[in-house]
Amino acid sequence: MYKVKVGKKILSANEEFAVKNRKLLAKHKKLCINVISSPGSGKTTILSRTINELKGKLRIGVIEGDVQTDIDAQKIRATGAPAVQINTESACHLSAAQVSNALKDLPIGDLDLIFIENVGNLVCPSAFELGENAKIVVLSTAEGDDKPAKYPVIFAKSKALLINKTDLLKAGVLEDFNIKRVKSDSRKLNKDIAIFEISAKNGEGMSNWYDWLVNLVGSIKS
Amino acid sequence: MYKVKVGKKILSANEEFAVKNRKLLAKHKKLCINVISSPGSGKTTILSRTINELKGKLRIGVIEGDVQTDIDAQKIRATGAPAVQINTESACHLSAAQVSNALKDLPIGDLDLIFIENVGNLVCPSAFELGENAKIVVLSTAEGDDKPAKYPVIFAKSKALLINKTDLLKAGVLEDFNIKRVKSDSRKLNKDIAIFEISAKNGEGMSNWYDWLVNLVGSIKS
Repeated sequence: MYKVKVGKKILSANEEFAVKNRKLLAKHKKLCINVISSPGSGKTTILSRTINELKGKLRIGVIEGDVQTDIDAQKIRATGAPAVQINTESACHLSAAQVSNALKDLPIGDLDLIFIENVGNLVCPSAFELGENAKIVVLSTAEGDDKPAKYPVIFAKSKALLINKTDLLKAGVLEDFNIKRVKSDSRKLNKDIAIFEISAKNGEGMSNWYDWLVNLVGSIKS
Repeated sequence: MYKVKVGKKILSANEEFAVKNRKLLAKHKKLCINVISSPGSGKTTILSRTINELKGKLRIGVIEGDVQTDIDAQKIRATGAPAVQINTESACHLSAAQVSNALKDLPIGDLDLIFIENVGNLVCPSAFELGENAKIVVLSTAEGDDKPAKYPVIFAKSKALLINKTDLLKAGVLEDFNIKRVKSDSRKLNKDIAIFEISAKNGEGMSNWYDWLVNLVGSIKS
């Protein structure tokens, strides 16, 4: 007679690597944040400014996901931080296996925080766990205020929303963008989401985001 | 003895529907354009303005693809044009089968041109033929000038590139955007691509795009 084990969840290949990554990060007590947005929302600019302005407080490394080129990894390296570029070729999101390989190339022991900058895409990356502690979503004001309603999944799953390019709002060139609608639609999907209004270009609003990050790193270490 | 036919291409389910759509459109001599871009590049605003300003010259219908909501179809219908909304739920691109169904709900015989506004995504929609005559790609200036290099496939496959939101360039709020780089990188990928610099918000540059469309409709009918 055979015994069939029930109750054991069969994991997909991606989930298996996500679990492996999560264990590795937990062992080292490192915070890992998966950054998701449309192309051109300003993810790399946000990360570069964050790395520069938190120097001395947080040691940050970055895994960069792009379909093609290492433009973003070069920008991160220009800050002095370690960055590993993954090119997905035709794939529209990072996989946990790719992140597992990239983690081997980062000096994890020397870092407090690892950002994974996913492929610019508001749909697919939200469906693939990478082993991160948290996802965050970036929305540029230039993309319009209907994006939480039209692409709800990532807003529902994210621990924080960064509304970037508030400098364009203040320049008066985006009359139709209703920031209250973005915040209210996001909170309908996710009542606990932290929301930061920032301009990674001129630095406005970034200090609240930095405080939030420093606190989150602290909570992982303790 | 069995004979094995070789040389017959086995089509995927998506390709079968794409062929079906292509035959239907050819039978009716209708132009169909698949519009692809990141979220928030201004696709719906471009289509609404185009429909309004070409009234009396071209009769236009729209198939709207979105993950969620019928916000875009409502905007198109406000112009008086027929629009069919497809909600892909979690899917990151339109399929030819979805378009086949939507075509049944459009008054094809009464139209000259059908736009398919794909899900906002610069990666996945470029891999799925819908039976269209041409793809076009929209890039908003706010997304940055590195997008043809970072997301080359759709720029290589498109018959035209619309560089939208030139009003932001003229307002002087996007100092880093090099339009020459966008054009040169796009032409490296696709030497024949037609490029239009437009502002769907204030109408600047739209007339060249309209002339191109009217000519293309004419070439299908003749």
